Amino acid sequence: MQKVFALMSDDNAKMTFDPTSLKYDEAGLIPAIAQDQGTGEVLMMAWMNAEAVARTLSSGRVTYWSRSRAAFWVKGETSGNVQELVDLRLDCDRDCLLVLVRQSGPACHTGRRSCFYRAVRDGAEVELMGPMN
Amino acid sequence: MQKVFALMSDDNAKMTFDPTSLKYDEAGLIPAIAQDQGTGEVLMMAWMNAEAVARTLSSGRVTYWSRSRAAFWVKGETSGNVQELVDLRLDCDRDCLLVLVRQSGPACHTGRRSCFYRAVRDGAEVELMGPMN
Repeated sequence: MQKVFALMSDDNAKMTFDPTSLKYDEAGLIPAIAQDQGTGEVLMMAWMNAEAVARTLSSGRVTYWSRSRAAFWVKGETSGNVQELVDLRLDCDRDCLLVLVRQSGPACHTGRRSCFYRAVRDGAEVELMGPMN
Repeated sequence: MQKVFALMSDDNAKMTFDPTSLKYDEAGLIPAIAQDQGTGEVLMMAWMNAEAVARTLSSGRVTYWSRSRAAFWVKGETSGNVQELVDLRLDCDRDCLLVLVRQSGPACHTGRRSCFYRAVRDGAEVELMGPMN
């Protein structure tokens, strides 16, 4: 935390964040992992483009780019299962994001809390959780 | 856990896992998120192909596909910072993996525990952790 403190207390050392400075794939997308900030549960992984990153930061509502619909996807906009941004992190290579969120209701379109509800155990797929009530 | 128990106790209901049943991108790769099974910390994200998934499951050592080297990458093989597989999970769309691991030492090539050591706060990038000793 020493380093954080140093950066925060010295304006000259601050690196202003520019969403276009991230590394996007050939489709202009970067994977974004959503993690529940309270429980640490990994909820889902989806994709953002530079504008989705900017919108997420400015609105505080996690916003992805839907590859299937080719449109911005404000998570929970229709379902109400919004993701409130708590912290946005980038990895060493600047080609993956981790968003810590406050998740309302299920993150998964199947009604489950997390999209990662299946595990491979002893060579077979098993289901770890059912849909939320 | 009811469902797990039902599946495990009824051989006919078991779905045998086949790595080729996952959805890979046009390069034959699937993103794999590594999470510390003890702390819940998200450590890194890298890529696997079907053979890397199979090797990870059979060896218990998390094995990625290095896109830069175009070669299998047994995490920690040279550095010693291995990832012992605890659980492999798949998401609802079968196009992303979550591997719960026991991580020896740092997961990041910079020597940090996690690759996600930078955050965007108040429009600036801040560093959350330094290299491990």
